[in-house]
Amino acid sequence: MKIGIINVTGYAGIELARILHRHPEADVVSVTGRSAAGEELGDALPHLARLGMTIEPEITKSVDVVFSALPQVASAEACVPFVRAGVKVIDISADFRLHDPAVYAEWYGVEHPAPDLLATSVYGLTELDRAGIAAASLVANPGCYPTAALLALAPVVSEGLVSERVIVDAKTGVSGAGRGLSMGTHFSEVNENVFAYGVDGHRHLPEITQELRRMRAGFEPSVLFQPHLIPMTRGILDTVYADLTDGAFASVEAAKAGVRDLYASFYADAPFVHVVGAPPQTKQTWGNNDCLIHPTVDTRTGRLVVFAVLDNLVKGAAGQAVQNMNLMFGLPESTGLEQLAIYP
Amino acid sequence: MKIGIINVTGYAGIELARILHRHPEADVVSVTGRSAAGEELGDALPHLARLGMTIEPEITKSVDVVFSALPQVASAEACVPFVRAGVKVIDISADFRLHDPAVYAEWYGVEHPAPDLLATSVYGLTELDRAGIAAASLVANPGCYPTAALLALAPVVSEGLVSERVIVDAKTGVSGAGRGLSMGTHFSEVNENVFAYGVDGHRHLPEITQELRRMRAGFEPSVLFQPHLIPMTRGILDTVYADLTDGAFASVEAAKAGVRDLYASFYADAPFVHVVGAPPQTKQTWGNNDCLIHPTVDTRTGRLVVFAVLDNLVKGAAGQAVQNMNLMFGLPESTGLEQLAIYP
Amino acid sequence: MKIGIINVTGYAGIELARILHRHPEADVVSVTGRSAAGEELGDALPHLARLGMTIEPEITKSVDVVFSALPQVASAEACVPFVRAGVKVIDISADFRLHDPAVYAEWYGVEHPAPDLLATSVYGLTELDRAGIAAASLVANPGCYPTAALLALAPVVSEGLVSERVIVDAKTGVSGAGRGLSMGTHFSEVNENVFAYGVDGHRHLPEITQELRRMRAGFEPSVLFQPHLIPMTRGILDTVYADLTDGAFASVEAAKAGVRDLYASFYADAPFVHVVGAPPQTKQTWGNNDCLIHPTVDTRTGRLVVFAVLDNLVKGAAGQAVQNMNLMFGLPESTGLEQLAIYP
Amino acid sequence: MKIGIINVTGYAGIELARILHRHPEADVVSVTGRSAAGEELGDALPHLARLGMTIEPEITKSVDVVFSALPQVASAEACVPFVRAGVKVIDISADFRLHDPAVYAEWYGVEHPAPDLLATSVYGLTELDRAGIAAASLVANPGCYPTAALLALAPVVSEGLVSERVIVDAKTGVSGAGRGLSMGTHFSEVNENVFAYGVDGHRHLPEITQELRRMRAGFEPSVLFQPHLIPMTRGILDTVYADLTDGAFASVEAAKAGVRDLYASFYADAPFVHVVGAPPQTKQTWGNNDCLIHPTVDTRTGRLVVFAVLDNLVKGAAGQAVQNMNLMFGLPESTGLEQLAIYP
Repeated sequence: MKIGIINVTGYAGIELARILHRHPEADVVSVTGRSAAGEELGDALPHLARLGMTIEPEITKSVDVVFSALPQVASAEACVPFVRAGVKVIDISADFRLHDPAVYAEWYGVEHPAPDLLATSVYGLTELDRAGIAAASLVANPGCYPTAALLALAPVVSEGLVSERVIVDAKTGVSGAGRGLSMGTHFSEVNENVFAYGVDGHRHLPEITQELRRMRAGFEPSVLFQPHLIPMTRGILDTVYADLTDGAFASVEAAKAGVRDLYASFYADAPFVHVVGAPPQTKQTWGNNDCLIHPTVDTRTGRLVVFAVLDNLVKGAAGQAVQNMNLMFGLPESTGLEQLAIYP
Repeated sequence: MKIGIINVTGYAGIELARILHRHPEADVVSVTGRSAAGEELGDALPHLARLGMTIEPEITKSVDVVFSALPQVASAEACVPFVRAGVKVIDISADFRLHDPAVYAEWYGVEHPAPDLLATSVYGLTELDRAGIAAASLVANPGCYPTAALLALAPVVSEGLVSERVIVDAKTGVSGAGRGLSMGTHFSEVNENVFAYGVDGHRHLPEITQELRRMRAGFEPSVLFQPHLIPMTRGILDTVYADLTDGAFASVEAAKAGVRDLYASFYADAPFVHVVGAPPQTKQTWGNNDCLIHPTVDTRTGRLVVFAVLDNLVKGAAGQAVQNMNLMFGLPESTGLEQLAIYP
Repeated sequence: MKIGIINVTGYAGIELARILHRHPEADVVSVTGRSAAGEELGDALPHLARLGMTIEPEITKSVDVVFSALPQVASAEACVPFVRAGVKVIDISADFRLHDPAVYAEWYGVEHPAPDLLATSVYGLTELDRAGIAAASLVANPGCYPTAALLALAPVVSEGLVSERVIVDAKTGVSGAGRGLSMGTHFSEVNENVFAYGVDGHRHLPEITQELRRMRAGFEPSVLFQPHLIPMTRGILDTVYADLTDGAFASVEAAKAGVRDLYASFYADAPFVHVVGAPPQTKQTWGNNDCLIHPTVDTRTGRLVVFAVLDNLVKGAAGQAVQNMNLMFGLPESTGLEQLAIYP
Repeated sequence: MKIGIINVTGYAGIELARILHRHPEADVVSVTGRSAAGEELGDALPHLARLGMTIEPEITKSVDVVFSALPQVASAEACVPFVRAGVKVIDISADFRLHDPAVYAEWYGVEHPAPDLLATSVYGLTELDRAGIAAASLVANPGCYPTAALLALAPVVSEGLVSERVIVDAKTGVSGAGRGLSMGTHFSEVNENVFAYGVDGHRHLPEITQELRRMRAGFEPSVLFQPHLIPMTRGILDTVYADLTDGAFASVEAAKAGVRDLYASFYADAPFVHVVGAPPQTKQTWGNNDCLIHPTVDTRTGRLVVFAVLDNLVKGAAGQAVQNMNLMFGLPESTGLEQLAIYP
């Protein structure tokens, strides 16, 4: 496939370039950048010098698929012409994730520039909608937090085993905030520090809610989503708390075993989702496309607790985008994504 | 006061030495160490060379108060003789926190060596029991997690405003695990990593439960306490989730304002607990004795969320111990603890 | 003393506020900020809320001494009026360090706004010019790198024991770059990374050269100064390499012992410079005013190697500024600077 | 090729497993571990679960090549039987690097168990001895520091352009110290800290000296090698200082351009050594096999300064080992090593 990457100089774009470099069917033919147009890619980003490309102001070559790694709003504007022209598009921004234009306007503060496309775009959480993604021409790649939260909740929500009041306490590395400068990503402010943010509502909440609703008819989730910034570059850990529905299991011990079996079965065919027997560590997914999940039940309170980890730039962004591309082009889902985690 | 420090070579002991060095009424006359007995303190710990002391195998001088910074079990053994001899003791370990010997045995796996003292020891969370501490001869200094969790919950629990099912999602730096070597504190394993631990029950849970019960007659807490290790040296952030009791407030907005006022009022006279208007950062307490608390209500779900941060080695250990010492000797609570946070 | 701090919102200014808060003779009466004028100090910087001050656009109160924590050029402009008015000034910026206006213009790219003051300002490396500082009305506080390098070299240069070709390989934490945003201080770019910078000449070089010349008549230093950025917030380690002059010592072993004795003797009366028997660690000076030095001779090559560490924001900036203030007002040098290092 | 890995549970072994997993010609058939023999590899190291292997006490299968990732001394003992049996061996430890048994005994404190093999082993710094490695049956993989230092010096030493007195000031991440526990790798001690170590001589010095001697007849190096530990997991930066020989270049500017051209030419055919135009960053090689080098001349002192970075576990260990294996089996040098750096 001939591939274009819009905004290769952001972190998701850099990661796309890295992953696609080892993809046997991928040929990146054109890359753009917001700030460094005209520069050699290897001058702007020395570790990508081997690609031998120039950063262009726009995609100039004929391509089979375009990845956009622009921020929201800018991304929709860049993607729409390609969608209209019949080129497959995978948008890593949030612009095509919310199907309701009113919800988009509420959370992003602008009217959506192409509301008709919200109806046809497919939410690209690979494991939960392989058929939809395979058939899509416009895939909205999920946010990093929602990927972890939805994979952590899908088995129990779709089986009707948890109540609608759910808490997602999320911890993320700093790269999720991107390459733009801010006091909140300044080294001396972030290092040796941890704090909550987004207490009045984080933009990943509506996509979590939207997708949970799709999992089970009549399920009307009430999600408290609280992210925290921690001093590391990559990685997300979502700790999910929920009440099991009354009578779902005969005992707490039965529940503990039951949810483990349910998750193992639910993800038995997923090459990148692994149900593990102990709390997973983000380092176990550093640089690769895995999501590790550990579901358990707190024996003292009977509450369900699910831990899910992933690399926010891989399974939470560029890796899942490539996984989706594979499906869209009829390739095995894991093509080009064989990289194991870099440890330590 | 003439002071002895048992196990000055652990992190809590090091911190005691540092804080007491600037305490105008304190005179540290004897320090012991488990591993370095006989060495000059300045050889084992160059930054303490200025104290000009020798690490002794036992407290050899007459003292007015002894701090123990030993791990549990060993600490009880070291403290008991001083208590029996009428010397005031502040134990930073967990050995005298749980008043029920059966609960101690359940969580620590050994019979308590001096169960009679469990009845007379005072749980030293300064802000919640100043009178008790002032009158005590044996103070059990609280754990770092419980200090944050209990300060975060005290106003609403004592007023009967929250239900009994509470979640404490805690994030801690690595120094809380002490100076003992383990794979879980090995730099290359912990750096760029985050993970949950203690999923089957952490030893700080029973003291949280015990002290919550004391806050309000009939309150029978059901606490889910889940700690996580994050890649920094110092600092704890407890994120506490609870349901407000039905009808406690007229509306979500009223609740949001109401809890803020309640907390501000509750801690109006506490020199080290500050109710702040935004999520606090652990860095804002780095190296000092403050606990910053931000209570709020999630407007979408109506749930109470309280964020509390502190330095696990100061307010979570050595600083609170000195705060308690001040009360025990009739000094102003903040004597010697004027140090502002080191930022950044 | 009544004190004004210009630009309290930068890292050096924050540190001044922290240190002076515990100084028994200091009364900070007015603070200014470049960005947050009009705000409460506690809103801009919650950990300083206890000071109860408002950030002003200019120093509004009568003061005995002004500290400037502005960047160069801006600092000179702010300081000059106070100097002209007879108020003692301690400038933490580089503006009054270089006595030759031509050298200033060469390195800072602008003409100095008050070249006459360059003749009267005193370079404030406390241990090397106590008398000069005590008599000064305008003290130019040294840079963080030069403080470590000059303390590391003073004993051997003043005794004529080393050749003029010196290498200073410096490693610094990120806070030395200040609070201004840049890609080079963006967390995700700096974390898990190390690199050299300033290869074409760093602005701290001319002050190192200027001050080395003053140490010994006829000594004409040829210094290669190479800084490196490392992923931590605070701390500087200067590793200094030099050749011993021929015949200075009878043997390599004699040299090793000889330099140790020389340094110990040279700094015998310095309360903040400690000659230690092993390579010092920056953590041993975290948050305090010490400089630890370990001089040795490499037995295989016969070369002198000196390691010097300090906290770039304390002995490398605000702490040394307070140390100088003490001398200027006839106080003991260490007043208010008793804080031990925070470890770990 | 059928491959055995001895000690897959150390960091170099883990890295070998990761790299070989994507090597198109490699088939890892047996892995051993010192501590976890009998365990499933995925239990000991969850991110390697995909390999589906069991950790064995010894290599049990017939193999074409064995990698040893054991520490020195233990490694020689494990490798010798394979060498005697005619199996190709790549030893990542230091055991076969030094050709002189007396030097080995001096630095490692034991007699070498197979001194005859020191004569036939080949020092595996790929770029400097491709023919020798291709023909070898026992390759001694270089240390991480020497790889960077020797690549940084080879062009100028072999051309006779520098004097024999060389300084290598090295900065390393913590993973170079391996997975064994020690106070010097304890998170709270290392984080926010930098310090020198090995001041009385580091074991990588003799291999640097040995290999520099081979570069030019009569060159008798006098190397001052000083390593420093910095708070990151991976990466090495060697800063090399040397005097250019008199008259080597017409001017400092000519020298600056001349060394750049020399290095570019020297490494023109090396797929993993890149001569870059600015000081390289370790992050630019994170997780891949590159070594980036920036040679320059300090215009003020005329001294040569060379910066070289690499990932100590890849080009400094497992990656170079695979690069050597490729040569030994007639494969293109970069087979299986196409991974770009993970950035950020």
